[in-house]
Amino acid sequence: MTQFAAAPPRRLLRLGVAGGGQLARMMIPPANRLGVSVSVLDRNGGSPAYLAGAAETVGNWNDPAALVAFGRGLDCVTLDHEFVDADALQALEDSGVPVRPGAATLRIIQDKLVQKQTLSDAGLAVAPFRPVESAEDLQQAGRIFGWPLYLKARRNGYDGHGNLLVRSAAEVSEAWERFGGQPGGVYVEANVPFVRELAVMTVRSLDGQIVCYPVVETVQADHICHEVRFPAPSSDAVQARARELAAAATEAVQTVGALGVELFETESGDVLVNELAPRPHNSGHYTIEACYTSQFENHVRAVLGYPLGSPEPRCDAAVMLNLLADGGGPGQPEGIAAALAIDGVSLHLYGKAEARTGRKMGHLTVVGDELDDVLQRARRAAAAIRFADGARE
Amino acid sequence: MTQFAAAPPRRLLRLGVAGGGQLARMMIPPANRLGVSVSVLDRNGGSPAYLAGAAETVGNWNDPAALVAFGRGLDCVTLDHEFVDADALQALEDSGVPVRPGAATLRIIQDKLVQKQTLSDAGLAVAPFRPVESAEDLQQAGRIFGWPLYLKARRNGYDGHGNLLVRSAAEVSEAWERFGGQPGGVYVEANVPFVRELAVMTVRSLDGQIVCYPVVETVQADHICHEVRFPAPSSDAVQARARELAAAATEAVQTVGALGVELFETESGDVLVNELAPRPHNSGHYTIEACYTSQFENHVRAVLGYPLGSPEPRCDAAVMLNLLADGGGPGQPEGIAAALAIDGVSLHLYGKAEARTGRKMGHLTVVGDELDDVLQRARRAAAAIRFADGARE
Repeated sequence: MTQFAAAPPRRLLRLGVAGGGQLARMMIPPANRLGVSVSVLDRNGGSPAYLAGAAETVGNWNDPAALVAFGRGLDCVTLDHEFVDADALQALEDSGVPVRPGAATLRIIQDKLVQKQTLSDAGLAVAPFRPVESAEDLQQAGRIFGWPLYLKARRNGYDGHGNLLVRSAAEVSEAWERFGGQPGGVYVEANVPFVRELAVMTVRSLDGQIVCYPVVETVQADHICHEVRFPAPSSDAVQARARELAAAATEAVQTVGALGVELFETESGDVLVNELAPRPHNSGHYTIEACYTSQFENHVRAVLGYPLGSPEPRCDAAVMLNLLADGGGPGQPEGIAAALAIDGVSLHLYGKAEARTGRKMGHLTVVGDELDDVLQRARRAAAAIRFADGARE
Repeated sequence: MTQFAAAPPRRLLRLGVAGGGQLARMMIPPANRLGVSVSVLDRNGGSPAYLAGAAETVGNWNDPAALVAFGRGLDCVTLDHEFVDADALQALEDSGVPVRPGAATLRIIQDKLVQKQTLSDAGLAVAPFRPVESAEDLQQAGRIFGWPLYLKARRNGYDGHGNLLVRSAAEVSEAWERFGGQPGGVYVEANVPFVRELAVMTVRSLDGQIVCYPVVETVQADHICHEVRFPAPSSDAVQARARELAAAATEAVQTVGALGVELFETESGDVLVNELAPRPHNSGHYTIEACYTSQFENHVRAVLGYPLGSPEPRCDAAVMLNLLADGGGPGQPEGIAAALAIDGVSLHLYGKAEARTGRKMGHLTVVGDELDDVLQRARRAAAAIRFADGARE
C-alpha cells in the first residue's frame, strides 16, 4: 500500500495535489515546513496554490494519461477536491505513485448513494434514504418517508448544487422531469428536521490512527458554509456522539488524510452523518489558529506517512467566516486595513485574480476566550472586506 | 515617505526581500495570506525562500544597479538580513521604491559604534563603550573600563563573529595586530557580567505604532542562539524594564518592521541593550505558535502599511530550539517521524539543500502550560533530528 510508511526517503519530498484551489494552497506552508515541496495539477493555471508557490501543471485531472504524467517523480498525490475520476486515480495508483486518499475510498465517497449505504452498513446513523430510478420510485419513496423529501444527484453535488426539495406527491412528475436525468443517477433522502448542523474533522494516518478535531457548529447561508463556531452549543453527550460517528465514518471509508464529516443534530438529541469530504474541509479552516496541529498539517503528515499531531484546541472559542464575493471585481478586496485593525483577526485571502458573485475569495478566523466576543469581532472584520466593485449594497 | 500608508492599492501586492534565507522564507505564508506575493534577491539562487515559493532574482544586493533593477514593479522592499550596503539601499529608495526598514535606519544599525552611540544618546542603558583607533587607545580603554574587555568590529559581525575578548594589558599588542584592522574599524565595549541574556521583539508600523512581544530568555551555545524560552525567569520589574528599553530603542532608530532587541540582565537587576537586528529575529521564531500575531506577519503588515496585530502570548510557555547541522549531509534530516511523534512539536525545516557543520537548518517550537515540560519535549524532539551523514557522535 505504501512506499514509505515507516521512513520517508531522506531528501526533499514532492507532494502532488490534484487541483490547485485554496485547499491545496493551504497545504503549502505545513508541507514546506516539513521540507516538502508541492506541485498541483490544475485545469486553468494561475491557481491559488500556484500563486502561493506550488509548481503547477495545467491539465485535466480526469484524464488518466495527464494524471499519470503529473505523478512522475512525485512521492505522493493527494486531492484538493473529491471530483477526480476514480478510474483515473486508479490508473495513477497502478503507475506506482501512492495516491492518498486512494481510488477505493473515492469510489465510495463520490457516489453519495454508495457513501450512504457504506455508512449505513457500518451501523452509523444516517437519514433514511433509498435509490430511485423513476417517477414511480419517487412517489413510492414519498409514501414511505413522507413529504417533503430530497431528490439528490448521486455524483458531483456540492454547496447545495445537486439537491432538489420535493414538497408533495403533486410535485413528483415535474421534479422527475427536471432532475431525474442527472448523470450518475439520483436517490432520495428523507427530510430530517434538525436543530443544527455540526461538523467534525478527522485525519487518518497511513497506519490507521484516527484523530478527531473538536465538534463545531456550521451555519449555512444559501447552501454554502458561511460561519463555523467552536465550541458547538450542543450537550456533551451530543458532542461525544458526533465524534464517535466521525471516527467510525473515517474507519468505514478507510481514507488516508483529512476527512470532513458533516452531521445533523436532531431535536431529540440524535446525531446523523450527513456527508463526507475526503480532504481538508471548510469547516476545519479554524484549526489553523485554534488547534495545536491544523487540519492541513495533519493531512500532509498523514499522506506522507508521518505521525499525526495533536488535534486538541488551544483556545476556548473560535469563529471562522467565509469571505464570498458579492459581485465582480479584483481578487484583492477593499477594507484589508480596516479588518486587520480589529483585534485578533487572522485574514486568509486565496489570491484569486477575480471576484465573482458567490465565489469563496478567502476566510478569516478569530480565536479568544468567549464565543460571543469572538463572533462579534469576526463579523465586524468580515463586514469590512468587500470584493465587489461599484456601490455598496 | 510612503506610497500607500493609508490604503495600499487594490490588486495583488508584490513584496521584495533582499536576501532569500529562512527569514524571507518565513515571511511568505503571512504575506500570501494577505494577498501579497514575495520576490527575493539572492546571491546564490535556490534559496530557502525560493524553495517555499518566492520568485527569485540572482544578484548582488550590494550592487545599487542590481538592487534598483530588482525593485522595479515591487510595492515595497524589505530585508532578510542587515548587511545590505546602505548606499545601495539609498539608491533603491531614490528610484522610488519604499524600502522598509530604510537606508537611514540601516546606517545606524550596521555600524555598531553608531548604533551604541544612538542608543546612548537616547538615554538608554548600554554597556560602556568607546571608539579605538590604535593599540594605545585600546590600552587606554582598559585603564578606564578594566580588563577583560571586548574589541568589536564595527561592521558585519554576527553570531559571535567580529568579537575578540582581550583579557589583560599584556594581550593588547597581539590583539590589535590580529583584530585592529577590521574593515570599517573597531570599538571597545566593557565586559558586563550578566546573569542572563534576554530578548524582546518589537514591530514598528509605518505610522509609528510600536508593539512589544513578550520577554524571552535566550541561551547561546558557541555564540549562536540555541534555545529561546518563554517566559523568561526574570522578575516583573526586570521584564517591564526590558520591554521599555526595547520600545525606546525601536523609537531611537525609527525602523519600520520587526526589530530584534538583545539585552543583558545584570546581577543587580539592571537591564542593558546589547544589540539590535532590524528584521525578524531568531529570538522571535517562537511567536509563530506562541502569539496571536507572529513576528513575520507583523513585519509584513508593518512594511506594507497595514495595522499591526496583537503580539500577546496565547500560551503560558514556549520553547524554540535551533536545529543546527553537526556535520555535512543532505538538507532533509533523519528523525522527522520520531520528532513529530512527540506531542506538540512544530517543526520548521528551511529546505536548505545541504547541511554543513553549524549551519541553521531549521528550528522547532513547542508550546504548552509549563516551561519545564515544554523544554523537555522540545529537547527530545531536537535530539531526534540529525542532519549529518555518518555515525552519531
